[in-house]
This record gives sequence, C-alpha cells and structure tokens, in this order.
Amino acid sequence: MITKTLGELAQYVNGRVFGDSNVKISSAATLGRAGAGDISFLSNDKYEKQLLSTKASAVIVGKDTVAAGNVPLLIAEDPYYAFMQIMVLLHGHRKHKKVGISPRAIISDSAKIGAGCNIHDFATISDGAKIGDGCVIYPCAFVGENVQVGNDCILYPNVVIYEGCRIGSRVIINSNACIGEDGFGFATHNGVHHKIPQIGSVVIEDDVEIGACCGIERGTLNDTIIGQGSKLGDLIAIGHGTKVGAHCLLVAQVGIAGSTTLGHHCIVGGQAGIVGHIALGNHVAVGAQAGVINNVADGKVVLGAPAIDAGQGKRAYGMIQYLPEMKQSIRDLQIQLKQLLAGGEDEPTSPTEAKNPS
Amino acid sequence: MITKTLGELAQYVNGRVFGDSNVKISSAATLGRAGAGDISFLSNDKYEKQLLSTKASAVIVGKDTVAAGNVPLLIAEDPYYAFMQIMVLLHGHRKHKKVGISPRAIISDSAKIGAGCNIHDFATISDGAKIGDGCVIYPCAFVGENVQVGNDCILYPNVVIYEGCRIGSRVIINSNACIGEDGFGFATHNGVHHKIPQIGSVVIEDDVEIGACCGIERGTLNDTIIGQGSKLGDLIAIGHGTKVGAHCLLVAQVGIAGSTTLGHHCIVGGQAGIVGHIALGNHVAVGAQAGVINNVADGKVVLGAPAIDAGQGKRAYGMIQYLPEMKQSIRDLQIQLKQLLAGGEDEPTSPTEAKNPS
Amino acid sequence: MITKTLGELAQYVNGRVFGDSNVKISSAATLGRAGAGDISFLSNDKYEKQLLSTKASAVIVGKDTVAAGNVPLLIAEDPYYAFMQIMVLLHGHRKHKKVGISPRAIISDSAKIGAGCNIHDFATISDGAKIGDGCVIYPCAFVGENVQVGNDCILYPNVVIYEGCRIGSRVIINSNACIGEDGFGFATHNGVHHKIPQIGSVVIEDDVEIGACCGIERGTLNDTIIGQGSKLGDLIAIGHGTKVGAHCLLVAQVGIAGSTTLGHHCIVGGQAGIVGHIALGNHVAVGAQAGVINNVADGKVVLGAPAIDAGQGKRAYGMIQYLPEMKQSIRDLQIQLKQLLAGGEDEPTSPTEAKNPS
Repeated sequence: MITKTLGELAQYVNGRVFGDSNVKISSAATLGRAGAGDISFLSNDKYEKQLLSTKASAVIVGKDTVAAGNVPLLIAEDPYYAFMQIMVLLHGHRKHKKVGISPRAIISDSAKIGAGCNIHDFATISDGAKIGDGCVIYPCAFVGENVQVGNDCILYPNVVIYEGCRIGSRVIINSNACIGEDGFGFATHNGVHHKIPQIGSVVIEDDVEIGACCGIERGTLNDTIIGQGSKLGDLIAIGHGTKVGAHCLLVAQVGIAGSTTLGHHCIVGGQAGIVGHIALGNHVAVGAQAGVINNVADGKVVLGAPAIDAGQGKRAYGMIQYLPEMKQSIRDLQIQLKQLLAGGEDEPTSPTEAKNPS
Repeated sequence: MITKTLGELAQYVNGRVFGDSNVKISSAATLGRAGAGDISFLSNDKYEKQLLSTKASAVIVGKDTVAAGNVPLLIAEDPYYAFMQIMVLLHGHRKHKKVGISPRAIISDSAKIGAGCNIHDFATISDGAKIGDGCVIYPCAFVGENVQVGNDCILYPNVVIYEGCRIGSRVIINSNACIGEDGFGFATHNGVHHKIPQIGSVVIEDDVEIGACCGIERGTLNDTIIGQGSKLGDLIAIGHGTKVGAHCLLVAQVGIAGSTTLGHHCIVGGQAGIVGHIALGNHVAVGAQAGVINNVADGKVVLGAPAIDAGQGKRAYGMIQYLPEMKQSIRDLQIQLKQLLAGGEDEPTSPTEAKNPS
Repeated sequence: MITKTLGELAQYVNGRVFGDSNVKISSAATLGRAGAGDISFLSNDKYEKQLLSTKASAVIVGKDTVAAGNVPLLIAEDPYYAFMQIMVLLHGHRKHKKVGISPRAIISDSAKIGAGCNIHDFATISDGAKIGDGCVIYPCAFVGENVQVGNDCILYPNVVIYEGCRIGSRVIINSNACIGEDGFGFATHNGVHHKIPQIGSVVIEDDVEIGACCGIERGTLNDTIIGQGSKLGDLIAIGHGTKVGAHCLLVAQVGIAGSTTLGHHCIVGGQAGIVGHIALGNHVAVGAQAGVINNVADGKVVLGAPAIDAGQGKRAYGMIQYLPEMKQSIRDLQIQLKQLLAGGEDEPTSPTEAKNPS
C-alpha cells in the first residue's frame, strides 16, 4: 500500500491544497463511505453538501468549488483527471499473474508469440497468428488464424477473435466479447437468404478498450475499424464495414449498423442506435436511446428517436406527455370556433349557442 | 416419472378440485398441446376459451375462473404459484451430473473448494478463490482471484467472474455472462480517455439468477450490488456502482447506467434503460423500452422514453400516431380564425374570404 | 485465386455485359477502393456517381441503371444476388482447418459423432449428444446432454447449447451465443420469485445462422423455435416458447419476449422489441427500435414505439420535433379566440382586440 501526504498528491497532479497538506492518504473512497486515510472526489454538484459531513481525509475538487466544512481540499484544474491520476498512483491498474506460456494452452507452431507474454490454460492461438510483447491472454480466449495482436494487450477469458483481424497495442478486450464474426450480409433471392462471404476484416487500433459481450462484425469488403483510443462499453453491436473514429466513447448496449462512419471524439449514449450508410462528424454527441437515421454534422448534439438536434429535442420529446391535453385543447377550440361561426351567421352573441356544442 | 392424482396435487398446493379428483397426472403441457396425463395452466384470460377444447386431464385455474367444458379443474388461490409447485414436483429442476472435481479443471492450490462440488473440465478456479459446498461449475467457466462463491451455486459454461467478486448462495449464472469487468470509467484530458482503476467489486446476493450474456460491471469505488432474490434476464448491462435491491425482476436487454439505486421488488421491462446517478424506490415498475431519467418514487409505474407516469404515459405515447391530424387541425383552426378576424374587420360572413385562406 | 473474364461471370450469373467482356476479374471490392482485377457492386443509388470515378474493372448493376463512365457493367436481374454468387465463386466461404477429433476435446462415450467432423481442443460433447456429419465445433464450445446437431453445422468458439436442444443441418452459430438457457419464468408468491422448471427446449431448424452473443431461451412447456433459413444478427434475445417462422431476418440487438409467434419472411430492424403473447403474420416488417405491442397482420410494415403502420408512423414520429411549436400555436389560438369571444360580446369588430394578444 502506498501512502502519500495530501501535499505530495497535490504536487503530483499539479494542484494546490486548501487546508492541512500533511494529512496522509493511502486510498480513495466515495464521500459517503470515506474514512481516515481516504481521499474522495466531488463528482457531481448534487453531492456538494456531503462536503460538510464526509469523513474523508481530503477531497479533490475543481477550482470553482466553494470550500465547505473542515475537510482539506485538493484543488485541481481538471479534478476528474486528477482523481484518475491519484487512483492510478495509489491503487494501480489490475495486476496480471505471471504465468508465462501455459503448457495447457494450444499454440500453433506457426504462431509467433512476443516476449514476456502470459498465455493461460485453454487459450488457443491459431496458425499464423502473431502476438506482440507483453500480452496477457486468459483462459479459453481464442485467437483465430493470422490474427495480429500488438504489444501489451489483454484478452480476458473467452474473448474470441476470428481469423485475420488486426488488433493494435495496449488494447483491452473484456470477457465474452467477439471480434470479427461475419457481417449480417445475405442476398435474398426467391425468398431464400444466401450468405455473402465477408472478406473484410476488423481493425482495432491502439489503446482501444472493448466491453464484455460486445460483437464487432467483420466487413463485407472493407474492414470494420475501431479508431485509436476509443472505448466501448458492454454489449455493443457494431455492424460490418462501420468505422468508429479515434477517441470515441460508446456506452453500453449501443448498436451501430453497417457501413456507417463516426468521426473522432464522438460520444454515443447507452442503448442508442445508428442506422447504416450514414456519417457522423467529429465531436458528435448522441443521447441515450436515440435513433440516428441521418448524417450528423461536426459538433452537433442529437437525441430522441428519430434523433433531432438536442436543443429542440429535449423540449419536443419532453412534450409528448402533454399530448392528451393538447388534443383536448384542439377539440375545445374546434367546438368554440364552430359555435362562433355558426353563431356569427345569425346571432353572434346568443347564449343558447354555447349549450349546443355540435 | 412421478404420477399423482389430481386430488393429491390439489392437497399439495392447498387448492381444491372441481370435477374428477382421481385423474392421474404425470406431466404438464400447454392447453393446446396437452393430452391424457397432462395438467395444464390457464396463464392468460385470452386463452380461456381453450378450456372447452383442451385435451388436458386437468387445468390449474384461479378462484375467479368460470368452469367451462368438462375438464377437471384445480382451483388455487395463486394459480401460477400452484403451477410452479406442480412443475417442480413432477419435473424437478435441472439435474447436474456428478462429475466431482475434474482433473482437467485448473484449480489453484490456494483456492478452497467446498464439499460435494462438481467442477468440470476446462474450468479455472484462480488463486485465493473460495467455492462453497455443492456448487456446479461447468466447462470453461472462469473464477478469478479471491472470488467468493457461496453454497449450491451453478456457473454455466463460459461464465466469467473477475477477481474479488462475492457471490452468495444458491446463485445461478447462465452461460457467457460476465461479472465484474471494469466499470466504464475514463477521465478525458486533452481529448484522450484515461482509464480509471475500478477498485470496487460486484456483490451478488443469495438466490439471484443472472441470464445469459449479461455484463455486470465492478464499481469504481463502491461495489455494484444485485440484491437477494433478484432475477435478471439475458443480455442485461448493469453499470458500475449500481445497486439493484432485493427481489427485483429485470427482463432481457435492460440497461442500467452507473451509480443508480433500485429499491426492492422493482420490475423493469425488456430493453428499458435507466440513466446513472438516480434512485428508484421500492415496488417501482418500468415499462419495456422505457427511458428513465429521473428519480421514481415508491410504487410508481412509469413508461415511455422519456419515462412518465404510466396512467398519463399510456395515453400520451399512444397519441403520437395522431400528430399529423392534430397538426392539420391546428392549421385549419389558424386559417378559420384568420378568416374570421379578417372578415370581422370589414365583412364577417363574406364568402370571398374563404377562398383566400392566407 | 480464381480469375474469370467478365463474360464468364455474366454467363455464370445469367446476366449480360455492357462494355468489354474480356476484362479479367479475380476479386471484389467497393467502388471507392476497387482497382484493376476487381469487380464492384452498386449497392445503393446514392453511390451511383462513383460509377464515373471507380477504378474497378467492372461493376455489377441492375437493369435500370443508366450506363455512366467507361467501366464495363455486368447487368443482372437481381444484382445483389449476382454479387453474392460472384463473391462465393471468387472468394468462397470460410475454410475450416481439418483437425479431426482433438484428443483434448471431451467427448462422452455415449455421444455419437458423425463422419468427417472437426472437433477442436477444449470442446465438450456431453452424454447422449448426437452430432451429424461434417460438423465443425470450435474450442470451448459446449454441447449439452442429449443435444442433437444435424449435418454440416458450425459452432464457433464458446458457443453453448444447453441439454436437449435440437439443431438442424447447415446451422451456423457464432461465438459466445447461448442456446437453451432457462426461460425467464418465475412465480412470485409473497414477494419471492420461485423458479419454474423450463421443460421445453429450443429447436433451430435447417440453414439458420445465429449471431454472436445471442441468447435463445428454452420454453417453459413448448419449444422455442427458430424457423428454417432464418438469420439472426448479434446480441439478440429470444424469449421462451417464442416461434420465429422460416426465412426471417432479425437484425442485431432485437428482443422478442416469450410465447410470441412470427410468421415466415418477417424482417425485424435492429434494437426492435416485440412483447410476449402476440402474433405477427407473414412478410411483416418491423422498423429499427420499434416496440411492437399488438398483433400485426400479414404483409404489414410497422415502426415506432408503440409501433404503428409505417405510412402513418413515419409522418407521426417525425412530427414529434414540431411539438413545441404546435403547443405554442394552440396557446396562440386559445388567446386569439378568447379575445374574439370577449370582444364579440360587446364589440365584435374592434381592431384593437387583434393588437393586444396578451
């Protein structure tokens, strides 16, 4: 266990301390659960009043947080980034046991395995596959023929990579994810669906993380591409020939159909769907559960199904709940107007008209 | 095969018989497919007329069912519960072959395995893991370091449990489900997403069942918790630090983002999504495909995306189909009113106005 | 590598050539990436202008395409089908290595394995299972007790088939898919959910393909059925006792609840959901993300959630974006009418009323 003073941590993350910089920190915890020795993090304004009651030894906050309570603060330009740095410093990333190359793994004679790899029991490395240095391949992972994996990748248990896919370096693929299965491509002729060979592949660039139980189809002709530094949550489906740009964030259960292109730094909310053969620009944000059916320009934020500009969409979709009363209002207006018109023809202000609303 | 008379079954489930209590029952089948020796179950009022035609030897019904046809009835207070009891009596739950501890499973020397376990070929039990008594662990299941599993659990083939997760007793986890993969937590700094160590874990309490291909993330700081007796369908994604209360039912493809809390006895319909950092009370029901973005109080029923109170929501969302005619009605009203106002200024009832609607 | 002249290909697919029929073709590529020796395919009208710039040696088009540019055309009645035929001719389907029966696979003495099967390391074939001729079963696939698999099936790595399921011939099941896990059936009594034995099974008929990470539940009493020639994309959830007819296409992330019936030749778009206990006819099409809650008649196209007839639905759901202005229009009308009525009572034609809309 690593212990640092708050002052040392502030220096490490290039922040400054408000309060006692000598408190000792060895772990991180949420405001509600932290105790002595823990540093906490104000992740959301709605937790701000917890600053008064937390038992944390210190809290990481942004520059605009008003000091409250007696807890020492670590004030950082980008507090979430500082939190990440401190989490890595104190806790580190997952350690992987050094198992070397298990004699119970199946490794083809024609496969090439880099230096310092750990390949567990029951893993399969097929003919012609090439694994870089320092990779960890857990039990029952399957690496197909001629797959290329870069350096320092982690394939968790039961990951499957079909033949010929190319994985960059420092890629993490979580359990039960599947890379490179055939694209959903069938030619229907006389009512029968004929399978089209999918001769494209999947390319996963450096520093990508893929969540558990994702399915990323190989392309029909072109490759399916997940761009550098992009992160995919769990249970995501990516269609054949689709290209996700660099540094995108796709939240769990997103689905993107085939031949669609996302630019870089896009964020797609959970359960959102994007149809095939369209293009989203750079820095596009898509709301959770949205259904995107048209191209989206750089920097736009869209939501709803069908997805529209967020400014308009937030009001519009939030207004569905008023449909019954809107319908009633229209009906009332129709009646009133009808009365008015009927009345206007012979006797505009007759009170009896009002009693006979059609 | 077990055979009982209808009278014996009625006694077993604390119900009573209408008709011949001596018919022999050895199996269960649907109304449409049942034959001699089968007991059937009226699961849904719309199948009620099948009581006239069924060839079942008996049918389980509720107290309010009107006797129809000649088929003997087993009348029970809670007919679905009686059906369950009889299914268990006649058919039992899945039997698991006694295989003991396979020499082809990998079991760490530092793992502890309880009495009467069956651990199949190619299963992995990692360092420090502790498995209770009477567990069944199928091929290619992976139990990570220091995982704790209670008594009488079943891990179906290819289940993966990442390190340190704690599983209660009588928990069933179906194939290709993944427990404890890292939460989707990244700090974005200068356009690059930096992985935050996820030091929380996953706690699955007693009597939980998890469906096939689910992904349950470990927490960033706090644990992700699935409460006692809750049942999750297939392909469900649960975010980091989320807490599902006891005795909840989550239908297939539900997604719940991180740091959200569900009370006990909640029911979440298929494909529904719940955003992060909110709280649903006890006995909340969420409609299929709903999108819940705000706290929900105890006992509320919500539906739609965005989710609103069901009473209002059912009408409101059902009214979207009338939008084109509503829009037309508004347009008509505008024209009529404009004519009226224009006409009112010089000649209210002039027929020429009507020809010039704007 | 196979090389054919364009004339030979045209003859093979029963089409005709416009331009030089002697160009040599050995591969397929997209219009944008094709080079010498490649045949391309005009999949979508919006790519039609690429005919002017493509470097392909030939392009497959439909009868109604206007010749453009100098590229030779292969004109086919059903161009997508011709494309499929040529893809199979030139590239073929995936080749599977001949590994025979691995000594590291676990095959029960009571299992029957047909001629010419390839069963890889770490696969499990349980007691009483029967595998037809020419099947390929990849590492860590699990075939449960008494499962029947027809001829020429492919089970990719980590596929799990629970006991007693019946798989036809030429069925392809992609990685990490799960067939026959228990249906989501619980009887709730005094707040506790009691598991109901699921004694139905799953039947997958001939020529079906199942995507990666799908979950297909076994039935409570009746079998869950996937009809002949149907194709399922990735991450699809099928509920217990549901019957998908022949030659259906289900796109990724579709969910169908239990006891629902689809006729033949249905198409269900990505992420669509269908509730339990309803019936869809033959040739029904369901839009992506739709929520189908009622029966649908033969040949109907539905979309939206709740799903309605597509003709109406496309306009209606597209109109949600106008709700704010519709609400404003209603408000304006109410005010105008109120003024008119108020004015009408004492001074119907006063022009000042119109200038003071409040």
